[in-house]
Amino acid sequence: MFLPILFVFSLLLSSTHASVLDFCVADYTAPDGPAGYSCKKPAKVTINDLVFSGLAIPGNTSNIIKAAVTPAFADKFPGVNGLGVSIARLDLAPGGVIPLHIHPGGSEVLIVIQGSICAGFITGATNTVYLKTLQKGDVMVFPQGLLHFQVNAGGSSALAFASFSSPSPGLQIVDFALFANDLPTELVVATTFLDAAQVKKLKAVLGGTN
Amino acid sequence: MFLPILFVFSLLLSSTHASVLDFCVADYTAPDGPAGYSCKKPAKVTINDLVFSGLAIPGNTSNIIKAAVTPAFADKFPGVNGLGVSIARLDLAPGGVIPLHIHPGGSEVLIVIQGSICAGFITGATNTVYLKTLQKGDVMVFPQGLLHFQVNAGGSSALAFASFSSPSPGLQIVDFALFANDLPTELVVATTFLDAAQVKKLKAVLGGTN
Amino acid sequence: MFLPILFVFSLLLSSTHASVLDFCVADYTAPDGPAGYSCKKPAKVTINDLVFSGLAIPGNTSNIIKAAVTPAFADKFPGVNGLGVSIARLDLAPGGVIPLHIHPGGSEVLIVIQGSICAGFITGATNTVYLKTLQKGDVMVFPQGLLHFQVNAGGSSALAFASFSSPSPGLQIVDFALFANDLPTELVVATTFLDAAQVKKLKAVLGGTN
Amino acid sequence: MFLPILFVFSLLLSSTHASVLDFCVADYTAPDGPAGYSCKKPAKVTINDLVFSGLAIPGNTSNIIKAAVTPAFADKFPGVNGLGVSIARLDLAPGGVIPLHIHPGGSEVLIVIQGSICAGFITGATNTVYLKTLQKGDVMVFPQGLLHFQVNAGGSSALAFASFSSPSPGLQIVDFALFANDLPTELVVATTFLDAAQVKKLKAVLGGTN
Amino acid sequence: MFLPILFVFSLLLSSTHASVLDFCVADYTAPDGPAGYSCKKPAKVTINDLVFSGLAIPGNTSNIIKAAVTPAFADKFPGVNGLGVSIARLDLAPGGVIPLHIHPGGSEVLIVIQGSICAGFITGATNTVYLKTLQKGDVMVFPQGLLHFQVNAGGSSALAFASFSSPSPGLQIVDFALFANDLPTELVVATTFLDAAQVKKLKAVLGGTN
Amino acid sequence: MFLPILFVFSLLLSSTHASVLDFCVADYTAPDGPAGYSCKKPAKVTINDLVFSGLAIPGNTSNIIKAAVTPAFADKFPGVNGLGVSIARLDLAPGGVIPLHIHPGGSEVLIVIQGSICAGFITGATNTVYLKTLQKGDVMVFPQGLLHFQVNAGGSSALAFASFSSPSPGLQIVDFALFANDLPTELVVATTFLDAAQVKKLKAVLGGTN
Repeated sequence: MFLPILFVFSLLLSSTHASVLDFCVADYTAPDGPAGYSCKKPAKVTINDLVFSGLAIPGNTSNIIKAAVTPAFADKFPGVNGLGVSIARLDLAPGGVIPLHIHPGGSEVLIVIQGSICAGFITGATNTVYLKTLQKGDVMVFPQGLLHFQVNAGGSSALAFASFSSPSPGLQIVDFALFANDLPTELVVATTFLDAAQVKKLKAVLGGTN
Repeated sequence: MFLPILFVFSLLLSSTHASVLDFCVADYTAPDGPAGYSCKKPAKVTINDLVFSGLAIPGNTSNIIKAAVTPAFADKFPGVNGLGVSIARLDLAPGGVIPLHIHPGGSEVLIVIQGSICAGFITGATNTVYLKTLQKGDVMVFPQGLLHFQVNAGGSSALAFASFSSPSPGLQIVDFALFANDLPTELVVATTFLDAAQVKKLKAVLGGTN
Repeated sequence: MFLPILFVFSLLLSSTHASVLDFCVADYTAPDGPAGYSCKKPAKVTINDLVFSGLAIPGNTSNIIKAAVTPAFADKFPGVNGLGVSIARLDLAPGGVIPLHIHPGGSEVLIVIQGSICAGFITGATNTVYLKTLQKGDVMVFPQGLLHFQVNAGGSSALAFASFSSPSPGLQIVDFALFANDLPTELVVATTFLDAAQVKKLKAVLGGTN
Repeated sequence: MFLPILFVFSLLLSSTHASVLDFCVADYTAPDGPAGYSCKKPAKVTINDLVFSGLAIPGNTSNIIKAAVTPAFADKFPGVNGLGVSIARLDLAPGGVIPLHIHPGGSEVLIVIQGSICAGFITGATNTVYLKTLQKGDVMVFPQGLLHFQVNAGGSSALAFASFSSPSPGLQIVDFALFANDLPTELVVATTFLDAAQVKKLKAVLGGTN
Repeated sequence: MFLPILFVFSLLLSSTHASVLDFCVADYTAPDGPAGYSCKKPAKVTINDLVFSGLAIPGNTSNIIKAAVTPAFADKFPGVNGLGVSIARLDLAPGGVIPLHIHPGGSEVLIVIQGSICAGFITGATNTVYLKTLQKGDVMVFPQGLLHFQVNAGGSSALAFASFSSPSPGLQIVDFALFANDLPTELVVATTFLDAAQVKKLKAVLGGTN
Repeated sequence: MFLPILFVFSLLLSSTHASVLDFCVADYTAPDGPAGYSCKKPAKVTINDLVFSGLAIPGNTSNIIKAAVTPAFADKFPGVNGLGVSIARLDLAPGGVIPLHIHPGGSEVLIVIQGSICAGFITGATNTVYLKTLQKGDVMVFPQGLLHFQVNAGGSSALAFASFSSPSPGLQIVDFALFANDLPTELVVATTFLDAAQVKKLKAVLGGTN
């Protein structure tokens, strides 16, 4: 009795074979476009494309900022491609700092998992500073494109996860933009009003030239 | 006298050769991305890409649900690619049912052409049921991603067309998701609170395993 | 035995009371914005907001164009507000014509329900005409913002439904834009190259001045 | 010497007083629309609007599903309004289950903080099951609108955070949609093929009627 | 002392190598999709992709409309691809006219640089004409998809720049759509109510047939 | 003879009274939301809402940066609300500089009208500098959210117009964000690696405290 049922359901399934776009796992071998990477053929997608284990390992904080950002953006985690969301891990050793930065393409929601973090952002319209020392479990927003930072506010290591409103929110660290390339010192001075000596000093630290 | 006029208009036409993106008919041979299929070269687009006749034929309702859904989504109808809208045909024989389902990627507007259809959807926030027996000419909305269904409410065949806010709204039928694959019975039981016997019974009908 | 279960489910329901935005039925008494009308309070939404019966009645075609367009856009049908889709009814008596027009805010998918309709659109980039006589069940696309028209191609009445990729696609009929207002004749002549006599003739028909 | 400088900068500041839309913190007293809640006046926004502490406290899992979902969506956390992202906390006691559900308005990225979780989703086009037991630090995606679930896969409590591509992704639990309201049993049976006895049993548990 | 600092910053840089999607310069050799052209590999992008000099040269206005439109849309200026904005140059000799037209895919903001321009658009809902003679420095909007025009209102040459809300807003000139192709005269007559003689006259001017 | 025609056209007009959303001129007295300001009633919109003359007047460059930015964003120019595009005027006296800044909510297309301007932006992913001295008529793009600047590159005054992919792109000047508010010096130092003396010096200039 059930066989006929199975048969007609298969017919329905066939006639409603809807869209291939249940998801669009990134195919890094095909061209990308303004909306993201091309889609891997659904038949070739495996669970490994949809799960990312790269955030399980603490970032290496044995560096001058005593901190690390480990992103799971679309260029590393093919499963988030086209989904409008992504995530990153923040590790801050005692004294650790995520320097002043922006995400050009997305808003951020940060949740503190361990330790305490002093986080802040500045508005564009009025240069107002929104600043708070976040404890474990606290969530803070950083609206799209605004300058912000995170600083370890306790004596122990801090861990946080940041979620973004885009699979490719981008990351621009102000110091790197100014001092880690060949942007001429005189242009940095002219457009930031920093002293040339200050600019040269940080260019030396960050590998910048000119 | 008119020739010079023609000449300068051609010049204008040339200088204003604007965008190739008047439309983006699907090229199924090139990669697709989060925004849809690649575009066929405009010069190769014909009227047949822009007109779809697949909805002229009633779907086969000689099946257990006595119903059929025939979509004209972007994977079948190249002309809707990138346009933000698509359409499907619903045939319901007497006693016919479109089982509980969702469209993950779009909202639906249904219009009854023939017969009467009892249609309903359930909200997520409050589990409120919105239910109505629709007559010929009635239009009902089914907001994006919410569970809904359509049941023939009369003694004769019913015909309706459903329009969607996406060229690839997708279709997920709850019964198929639960009982027509290898999702382990114990996981179905654990996540739906159905009795195992009930799960196994429907898996048998729909070809599911495990 | 079941009571405790019911109790804890209620707790879960409470803790997961998610979003009020399952839908956003238009509240015409509050301000509207670029994304549409304000939302009616969910508790006040009824099935009548979500079902529209205005398309059940044929439009009056006892007019010079022997045709009528009856929209179910967001300003008439509160249920489509915010859903990204809407619908309209087209009635064409024998000889009926939907004059050259555009939808500024959405793409269209047309399905013929009865009779035959000669439909066409023109591209912007190359002024290519895509034209076809559609039969019952045929679907044709009209990409966003492009000039198009529908003409009854048979000896009997025709009926079609047009779906749109927006709850408020808008409608601009070229003849009305040119001849049914106070746009000065000399500006119409200058920007269309029509003869002034032709402009004045149609202004007289359509109630235009100047 | 610096005063004149300060003066002219103030002038620049004034002349470039750009947009009030650096962010749009929800004002629950004004109307909401398809894009979200109205914006609180920037001058009245405080850090407390931008930080949410409600996820610091474990959800109460002393219930039949031994689990709890605690959302920080726009209706609770005004700071995420308009930002395109939100977050929720998942607590699963041993044996805990987040039942089969969908988010109608957003994709999800889940990160496991503690314990292990068996998570899965089912595609609409092919009913393929993507299933994995996630360990601490693993991230998994759940594409928009698809049915999915999470089950505690270990002997101890599990904690995870879910991020979404919308400030109001919504939440629809299939069991609640079917069994926790007045949807008539015969309609549930007709649209799910469940046995009436099964439906009535779960309606009794979940408080449904009819 | 600075070397170790440089070293750890490089590590941070590596671990935060975020997204390739800072921009998406058009690669015309790869497929395009609904969201625009594929992206050139970032390493191959040069400043010449990001700067366009084609608007520096006045358009040739030695033609019957005494005007020219020179666009810098995505099909000519690869740098705007995916950015949501583009620009065009308008030159109007004395007596010059940009004929009645629409941009199917974008809104326009026009700024007059030299001379005076009488500009207008017509609404769809009420056929209201918004008309103004713009002077140097005046800015006027033309909402998406609505019919509009610009006419030199002074005795000297006029120059303006038009910005658009899309990298590919498109351009459809009504006269070209009606009279510069093979759209049958009888269909033009039927859908515009113009006299056949008028249609044939303009078809002769603009190179149309049928 | 024409009267009946007029009559039936009026009927058509009535039956096709489509959408009120041909445009959404800002009503500053009603609430704004994530998509922009509420809409003024169409009947109250005048041409003055749609034309902005504030860019006709050169900005005052008698200041330390010898430059001025004059925006026509949605908070000043109600006509661009909801249109996805806006514009601003840049005046640079000899030696003038638009300091390092970002637009959090939009991409920019700059066109030089007079003089020459050295413009540049820096990418986030690789800190690459794209730099060019633009001449009259040159157009350059500045992708959304990336740090950029403009410097007068000639001996005479320069004039440029910048168009944006949003009616409210925002503007955040790095120096103002760091030095023109109460952000504690130690946090500026910690998150930028600038010397405290440098920070205090610029805070003094720009009116910052702490």
